[in-house]
Amino acid sequence: MNSHVITLACRPVGLPTADNFQLQSQALPALQPGQVLVKNLWMSVDPYMRGRMIDRKSYIAPFQLGEPLEGGAIGEVIESRHPDFTVGSHVSSMLGWRSHFISRGDDLTRLPDTPLPLQSFLGIMGMPGMTAWVGLNRIAALKAGDTVFVSAASGAVGSAACQIAKLAGCTVIGSTGSAGKVDQLKQLGVDEVINYKQVDSLSDAIATAAPQGIDVYFENVGGDHLEAVLNHMNDHGRIAVCGMIAHYNDTEAQPGPANLANLIIKKLKMEGFIVFDHWEHYGEFAAQMGQWLAEGKIQSQETVYHGLEQAADAFIGLFEGKNSGKMLVKLGE
Amino acid sequence: MNSHVITLACRPVGLPTADNFQLQSQALPALQPGQVLVKNLWMSVDPYMRGRMIDRKSYIAPFQLGEPLEGGAIGEVIESRHPDFTVGSHVSSMLGWRSHFISRGDDLTRLPDTPLPLQSFLGIMGMPGMTAWVGLNRIAALKAGDTVFVSAASGAVGSAACQIAKLAGCTVIGSTGSAGKVDQLKQLGVDEVINYKQVDSLSDAIATAAPQGIDVYFENVGGDHLEAVLNHMNDHGRIAVCGMIAHYNDTEAQPGPANLANLIIKKLKMEGFIVFDHWEHYGEFAAQMGQWLAEGKIQSQETVYHGLEQAADAFIGLFEGKNSGKMLVKLGE
Repeated sequence: MNSHVITLACRPVGLPTADNFQLQSQALPALQPGQVLVKNLWMSVDPYMRGRMIDRKSYIAPFQLGEPLEGGAIGEVIESRHPDFTVGSHVSSMLGWRSHFISRGDDLTRLPDTPLPLQSFLGIMGMPGMTAWVGLNRIAALKAGDTVFVSAASGAVGSAACQIAKLAGCTVIGSTGSAGKVDQLKQLGVDEVINYKQVDSLSDAIATAAPQGIDVYFENVGGDHLEAVLNHMNDHGRIAVCGMIAHYNDTEAQPGPANLANLIIKKLKMEGFIVFDHWEHYGEFAAQMGQWLAEGKIQSQETVYHGLEQAADAFIGLFEGKNSGKMLVKLGE
Repeated sequence: MNSHVITLACRPVGLPTADNFQLQSQALPALQPGQVLVKNLWMSVDPYMRGRMIDRKSYIAPFQLGEPLEGGAIGEVIESRHPDFTVGSHVSSMLGWRSHFISRGDDLTRLPDTPLPLQSFLGIMGMPGMTAWVGLNRIAALKAGDTVFVSAASGAVGSAACQIAKLAGCTVIGSTGSAGKVDQLKQLGVDEVINYKQVDSLSDAIATAAPQGIDVYFENVGGDHLEAVLNHMNDHGRIAVCGMIAHYNDTEAQPGPANLANLIIKKLKMEGFIVFDHWEHYGEFAAQMGQWLAEGKIQSQETVYHGLEQAADAFIGLFEGKNSGKMLVKLGE
């Protein structure tokens, strides 16, 4: 049989375009003993994938030209010669951007038996939800009463961070880029929401939204956002640096914040992190998040594109603000 | 009797000049019961004082126009109506920038009985030495085998940091701004020294000096230094942000480093600190440093100006690289 795959046709310069991606058909060989055949049902597109499209040393190897892209995916085992995987079981893997693949099982994780939607394991129960939880709890040492600012608050990670911080007893301020997203965030319980595209001065808007100052900044954006928040951090504030999406498509270096001396004046801690370094805590996170979801205390928002041929558009859409919550591609229809 | 004091005549714009300072004579009243009269013997000038000359909210109140400046000083009690302070005893205080002052004792610290030179309590045994020790041990969690980069390595804090890191079993790379200072740092045992004024690319120079990368950056400078070091930090590196002297005389905001995304890519922690927040650990520091000094394992370098009327020049000289090690003003001659 054939698998449809999306390969990296050429490396993007600036905002990715459709030309960077190529849909191909690849023949899959017959299944050998110890192998399973997986049909992907859902795949994830995430901002961090932009970094892997650059040919540089980083925490994860760059994508290779002409090779299939990779990323989180949820699939169903449709043929098995492996004793641990029965036909019909659901698995997660990092082998997205393709319709089918063959595995020896060591790169698959069986999904638990749960009433949660399968795709939640790519979102609120998966890497983005875990990223929010790690950043707040393990990097920023969140505590009740903190005032928390979340940039890109409508994204998969941001909307999880806002809700986790609210459940921890914090005051939460988010920034986002459209009136519709402002409304959605307010419905999630975010105390103050700034539409950064509609303010003359983001720094002034933060001063108004958080007259008490910011204790924890969950940083997804970088650039002007970081500079504006630094002006309003409280003493001994913590900045968990999860992403800097404002810079991912830079074609030349952009200057950083002019006010980093606030690190000294306010004795701030600023720490970058990668969720995979903390994966040993996934069980603790999943138990907590599963309970919140079962109790209806956290909502999982999704934006869904349909079909592998839409995956590139979904990915590019991440940088154009086209998603509310988790951006997903539904496959296998 | 009269005290000679230096007041802040006007707030500096850019590099301070002699005009910003005014030498005045102030009459001191007769001593009351419970008071002591102190004659200052040494006073400290430190880069952080530049920040107090700006009228802004910070970790310490700004200096007031027309009022005497403040800063570390070592003095001798020359008259006492206080039971705890005998004439001839030596005290440290934050009441520098003046020849004499009257105290009720609560702003004085008696110096221990020690063979160390009095002025070392303004340098290696005092705030600058403690700053180096706190930044390395309590902020950057220094451990044997780390490669440590120290900017402004010839300063009071920097030269202490270099030596403390060497004693901890680290490889130490320093940057400084003259050939003479390069030689002095090499004599202190610093493994590699970069004269940043003589290199085409500081980043390239760091790559050559530290092919194994940097684990700990003791940041005294900011600006281009920070950007260059960020390129060469190792994964999970720690940056103790002590100062950003490159920015203290900025008259307009200068852009920050363009490569802060390294915080994420390399999972770096960057933390600002103020030594006074850690003063409860002074005893631990002083015991360790006192032993190192007694054993001849640490050298204390000093640059001495003479007379209160030279204090402003000494202070301005900090920003012109005129000191090797601790910049001091000897008074009471």
